[in-house]
Amino acid sequence: MPTQPSKKLETFPNPNPERDYVISFEAPEFTCLCPMTGQPDFATIRISYTPDQRCVELRSLKLYLWSFRNEGAFHEAVTNRILTDLVEAIDPRVMSVEGDFYVRGGIHTKVRVEHRKG
Amino acid sequence: MPTQPSKKLETFPNPNPERDYVISFEAPEFTCLCPMTGQPDFATIRISYTPDQRCVELRSLKLYLWSFRNEGAFHEAVTNRILTDLVEAIDPRVMSVEGDFYVRGGIHTKVRVEHRKG
Amino acid sequence: MPTQPSKKLETFPNPNPERDYVISFEAPEFTCLCPMTGQPDFATIRISYTPDQRCVELRSLKLYLWSFRNEGAFHEAVTNRILTDLVEAIDPRVMSVEGDFYVRGGIHTKVRVEHRKG
Amino acid sequence: MPTQPSKKLETFPNPNPERDYVISFEAPEFTCLCPMTGQPDFATIRISYTPDQRCVELRSLKLYLWSFRNEGAFHEAVTNRILTDLVEAIDPRVMSVEGDFYVRGGIHTKVRVEHRKG
Amino acid sequence: MPTQPSKKLETFPNPNPERDYVISFEAPEFTCLCPMTGQPDFATIRISYTPDQRCVELRSLKLYLWSFRNEGAFHEAVTNRILTDLVEAIDPRVMSVEGDFYVRGGIHTKVRVEHRKG
Amino acid sequence: MPTQPSKKLETFPNPNPERDYVISFEAPEFTCLCPMTGQPDFATIRISYTPDQRCVELRSLKLYLWSFRNEGAFHEAVTNRILTDLVEAIDPRVMSVEGDFYVRGGIHTKVRVEHRKG
Amino acid sequence: MPTQPSKKLETFPNPNPERDYVISFEAPEFTCLCPMTGQPDFATIRISYTPDQRCVELRSLKLYLWSFRNEGAFHEAVTNRILTDLVEAIDPRVMSVEGDFYVRGGIHTKVRVEHRKG
Amino acid sequence: MPTQPSKKLETFPNPNPERDYVISFEAPEFTCLCPMTGQPDFATIRISYTPDQRCVELRSLKLYLWSFRNEGAFHEAVTNRILTDLVEAIDPRVMSVEGDFYVRGGIHTKVRVEHRKG
Amino acid sequence: MPTQPSKKLETFPNPNPERDYVISFEAPEFTCLCPMTGQPDFATIRISYTPDQRCVELRSLKLYLWSFRNEGAFHEAVTNRILTDLVEAIDPRVMSVEGDFYVRGGIHTKVRVEHRKG
Amino acid sequence: MPTQPSKKLETFPNPNPERDYVISFEAPEFTCLCPMTGQPDFATIRISYTPDQRCVELRSLKLYLWSFRNEGAFHEAVTNRILTDLVEAIDPRVMSVEGDFYVRGGIHTKVRVEHRKG
Repeated sequence: MPTQPSKKLETFPNPNPERDYVISFEAPEFTCLCPMTGQPDFATIRISYTPDQRCVELRSLKLYLWSFRNEGAFHEAVTNRILTDLVEAIDPRVMSVEGDFYVRGGIHTKVRVEHRKG
Repeated sequence: MPTQPSKKLETFPNPNPERDYVISFEAPEFTCLCPMTGQPDFATIRISYTPDQRCVELRSLKLYLWSFRNEGAFHEAVTNRILTDLVEAIDPRVMSVEGDFYVRGGIHTKVRVEHRKG
Repeated sequence: MPTQPSKKLETFPNPNPERDYVISFEAPEFTCLCPMTGQPDFATIRISYTPDQRCVELRSLKLYLWSFRNEGAFHEAVTNRILTDLVEAIDPRVMSVEGDFYVRGGIHTKVRVEHRKG
Repeated sequence: MPTQPSKKLETFPNPNPERDYVISFEAPEFTCLCPMTGQPDFATIRISYTPDQRCVELRSLKLYLWSFRNEGAFHEAVTNRILTDLVEAIDPRVMSVEGDFYVRGGIHTKVRVEHRKG
Repeated sequence: MPTQPSKKLETFPNPNPERDYVISFEAPEFTCLCPMTGQPDFATIRISYTPDQRCVELRSLKLYLWSFRNEGAFHEAVTNRILTDLVEAIDPRVMSVEGDFYVRGGIHTKVRVEHRKG
Repeated sequence: MPTQPSKKLETFPNPNPERDYVISFEAPEFTCLCPMTGQPDFATIRISYTPDQRCVELRSLKLYLWSFRNEGAFHEAVTNRILTDLVEAIDPRVMSVEGDFYVRGGIHTKVRVEHRKG
Repeated sequence: MPTQPSKKLETFPNPNPERDYVISFEAPEFTCLCPMTGQPDFATIRISYTPDQRCVELRSLKLYLWSFRNEGAFHEAVTNRILTDLVEAIDPRVMSVEGDFYVRGGIHTKVRVEHRKG
Repeated sequence: MPTQPSKKLETFPNPNPERDYVISFEAPEFTCLCPMTGQPDFATIRISYTPDQRCVELRSLKLYLWSFRNEGAFHEAVTNRILTDLVEAIDPRVMSVEGDFYVRGGIHTKVRVEHRKG
Repeated sequence: MPTQPSKKLETFPNPNPERDYVISFEAPEFTCLCPMTGQPDFATIRISYTPDQRCVELRSLKLYLWSFRNEGAFHEAVTNRILTDLVEAIDPRVMSVEGDFYVRGGIHTKVRVEHRKG
Repeated sequence: MPTQPSKKLETFPNPNPERDYVISFEAPEFTCLCPMTGQPDFATIRISYTPDQRCVELRSLKLYLWSFRNEGAFHEAVTNRILTDLVEAIDPRVMSVEGDFYVRGGIHTKVRVEHRKG
């Protein structure tokens, strides 16, 4: 069984770059580890973007999200990092990433980050 | 049984072209095939528009959406194409098309495209 | 049993014409006939308005909506006509009418029309 | 437009009479008239049965239910009558009919009738 | 405005006494007064019965339930009394009455009473 | 049992008048009488406001809303009057009142009124 | 502010001891402390019973449930103890108590206990 | 793209044949064609069984359900046939199949079939 | 068991201060006491903020919210105070706090306060 | 970070062994790996039991469920194994375990296993 899924985000050309349109993903099967306690964290990751020249390929996105499974990651940092990696891969016109984490200590946490092409 | 339903979108005159108003359709019975694997994809298609001189006829819209049943089509491309075909048929003032696709690989995908008359 | 309910919309003076406020009705018991096939159609009609000098009386609105029961009416036309009749009866500052029709051919249709006093 | 839809319930042979199985219909587009006031009533009709030698054909069931549109019928009586007509048409092993009527006078009414082959 | 609505429950002959069937009412607009504090209580009353020779008439049931509006009544007692009055009026084969009361002191209360013909 | 609950709205000083903030109440236990028929009406009253120097005290608000129990009041008028009384009592920066009334004649009605300090 | 609310459960005579009927309470505002960590626990307590000669009075039940606020109590033990105290107070024909506790460590726990008069 | 997906249901040995336990599948992505009109039908198929010596393999079940995509099939017949094919493949102790079909002509249809090992 | 949990809000450096992004918490396990009656109040606290240089640490936030357990606090005042304490601890760019309190006297109350860095 | 969480299920004495009562857990944060593909699977595990002399301790149950995180496990086998391990640890009077797995290939799977003390 693979211990190190590839983090490489595959891309393909935007079929309609002449239009501003929105692609959204909701991935309820995200899990990583708390870097302090090693305890598993679970989240739904929501990604929404307007592509410029490239789109992200769905299967590589799935593998990319799996790659956090055995990594330690704080809520705020992991959500920012997913945005940074995706922006680097496809340079979208606009993109937002939301990490919606399961209850810990009776508190439900969400982190929402946005990027707009300069 | 018909293997090639007509893609012809029938239209009729807008009964109230003096007003800007909105017609919306939600079609949860959309299916096409993944062009890479041949695997069936399922989606709800949501269309919303402000007619100019023509409206799209409901029965021909149904047949048009059926015509994708045995075609291969990527999520991003098929949603853009439905918009393009409808704009060509009725030249609306404003129109949006949303493809809301079932979960694949643990990820739920939506694509939303808009058109505004120049 | 009455075959021809009165279409007369009764009105009463707006009790607070000095204020802009909103009155909304939702009538889930609307039915008319398809003018091509004679098949019954069912809809929820939603009306929302800011009165000027007159308000529409609730019981006469109910009778007015019943009067479509045995009339043939297209989705787009009937929604526009309800707006036209109400505007004529009470001349509101703003009004919207939405017809939210049951599924036909696997497609759910809504028509939404607005009026703003000139 | 037809003023008198046929009440004839069409039937077809049960494809698997060697098994006891259950067919259920839910028809939210039922309307009749109150025999005392002529006011429209709306209901969802739910039918569930185990066929013996015959099944009821879906399109004729739809036309049968439409035939109540301009008839006066009390809640209790109309639900019993639908059961009686269906039992006469297909002589099922077991059948239930439920009329689930919209709110009148602030009260929501259901009537549920069952038949079991003697 | 009437201060003392009639408590008389009107009845009509069961149209199908040869069958055991079930009639259910849900009345979410019930209110009475707390006999100790005079504070209003609100409840949904749910009634379900199998008629014998008589059915209860819907409009008189509505008026009967209104008659509690300005009466003091404990939760347990009022639910039992509605059952007793209905049994006396129509002598059903089986009947249940449920009073589902709004939250008081952070506690939501239901009382459910049944009668079976001896 | 009190037949005439006090209509006096008690107030207390806004603890944070240096901030604009919002206080919202939802009261699903409102009932009054139809002035034409004496029939009970039921509603949920929703109040939302930004206090200036005074806030409304919760228990007196409850008693104030009870005071409509045996009064006749039209939907449009009663919603406006609650706003007028509250504005007079606490002179808020902004306030809205919504009356969301139960179904009558198959129609669900809402009235929404707003006030903004001049 | 009271630090030791009374645990005394008040009772009153069953108004209809000749009938078997069911009284249910749902109290979503229950809190106690974890006896090992001192951490607050939150639960909804659901009680359902058929009274024999006595009923439990609602206000004393509320005070009784508050009395656990600053007590340490395991999930299994506290649910059993509420049943034991109520059975001792009113000796019901049948009674069940369910403690439905908030998520701890990603796990949602329920404990359900029943008593039947010997 | 494959025009004729294999109908072969793969199986594997029940890991715990000494126990009676239940495996359930819900497949909302089922589509076939109406044998009379060629019109697409959509359904959710629900399967539940207690295995004896063999279990059905998930991926082959998916391919089996896809194989109906371009076949004409009546609601009653297709649901019975899925049961028959599965019983032949794995000879379960108990099995049920439910076909829950989308609205046609304003009517929602379900067919539920069961098998019990003789 | 601790009677006086620390009110100290711990903080950590914002991992991405170059971005404006939003962190949200929902804490449904908040309880305090009514300062007039000593009666427990329950609320869900919702906090949302854009960090500047510091973020609030989740575990200390939980302990901070527990510290209100045995304190008397009015709805309006406690919501304002949570905002004030958090602003003092982390000096965010924008922050809102909402207290969503359980029903009291048949009325559901929310208080929503916002802060924007000057 | 721990790579091998302990699988040891801790237990404690049943506080009320004289009663038959039910303890239920719902753990939505379960994940394991598909033994054929190495792909992560996600599930909600539901456990319900009547204790005999021992109860399972909540924290050790959480750690036990985490221990599957990097193990390959078929749906049917993992659900049976959780039951077997729990029965061995606490020898309950009755126990059920349900694994409710996320959608794979468009199919949602549940496995439900029960044990009853011989």
